[in-house]
Amino acid sequence: MPTHEQMVATVKAYVAAFETADPDAVAALYAADATVEDPIGSPLVQGTDAIREFYRHAIGVGAKLRLEGPVRTVKRQAVFPFSVHVEHQGRQQRIDVIDIFSFNSDGRIGQMRAYWGVENCHQVEPGARS
Amino acid sequence: MPTHEQMVATVKAYVAAFETADPDAVAALYAADATVEDPIGSPLVQGTDAIREFYRHAIGVGAKLRLEGPVRTVKRQAVFPFSVHVEHQGRQQRIDVIDIFSFNSDGRIGQMRAYWGVENCHQVEPGARS
Repeated sequence: MPTHEQMVATVKAYVAAFETADPDAVAALYAADATVEDPIGSPLVQGTDAIREFYRHAIGVGAKLRLEGPVRTVKRQAVFPFSVHVEHQGRQQRIDVIDIFSFNSDGRIGQMRAYWGVENCHQVEPGARS
Repeated sequence: MPTHEQMVATVKAYVAAFETADPDAVAALYAADATVEDPIGSPLVQGTDAIREFYRHAIGVGAKLRLEGPVRTVKRQAVFPFSVHVEHQGRQQRIDVIDIFSFNSDGRIGQMRAYWGVENCHQVEPGARS
């Protein structure tokens, strides 16, 4: 049963793995049969290989994450607001997202669900703080 | 099918109804058979009367809400980070929460789930910005 501190540490390791561009480090946070639904309504990405590939793509396009508030935890779930920063066709983009990580009893992520829609994607004006 | 703007307006009306201490206004945002699970893992509060009573209590103890970032919307769901501010035994408390509102096709909230745990409850030191 993961503690609050362990779940927060996993969220921070997740953000850090984008910073160091390390998809293997992200995949290692997940259980072998975990599922990723990003965004909600998308086909599930399931299992270590598919999940590593999913993050290899996201990290490959240069996405960086920034936590935007405290991690809320309850009943083996961690929920946190963050923003994704990525360049797309020469323009800086910001996407506001909230993820839910559901943890297995061993402390690995068993299920990830990402809440964001097109209305949460913003073009950042040059010179503005994103 | 509620739009992003309609879902965001409902979230703002929810926050505003705490500000004006109006439990009827909160209850009116919900469908007649809606459920509230606050926090996750609690027995469901179901139906207009029970929901109004639930908010009458929360508003009665003086709880105020503050949005802490943009509302994320996807597939008839709105997810948002906020903080609750309430005095408890003479001390100012802050609770960091993320709510998910799932909307019915008519734009009313059909399901509310609140993510927060004991580790998200903080005593605010006198004089500090909460």
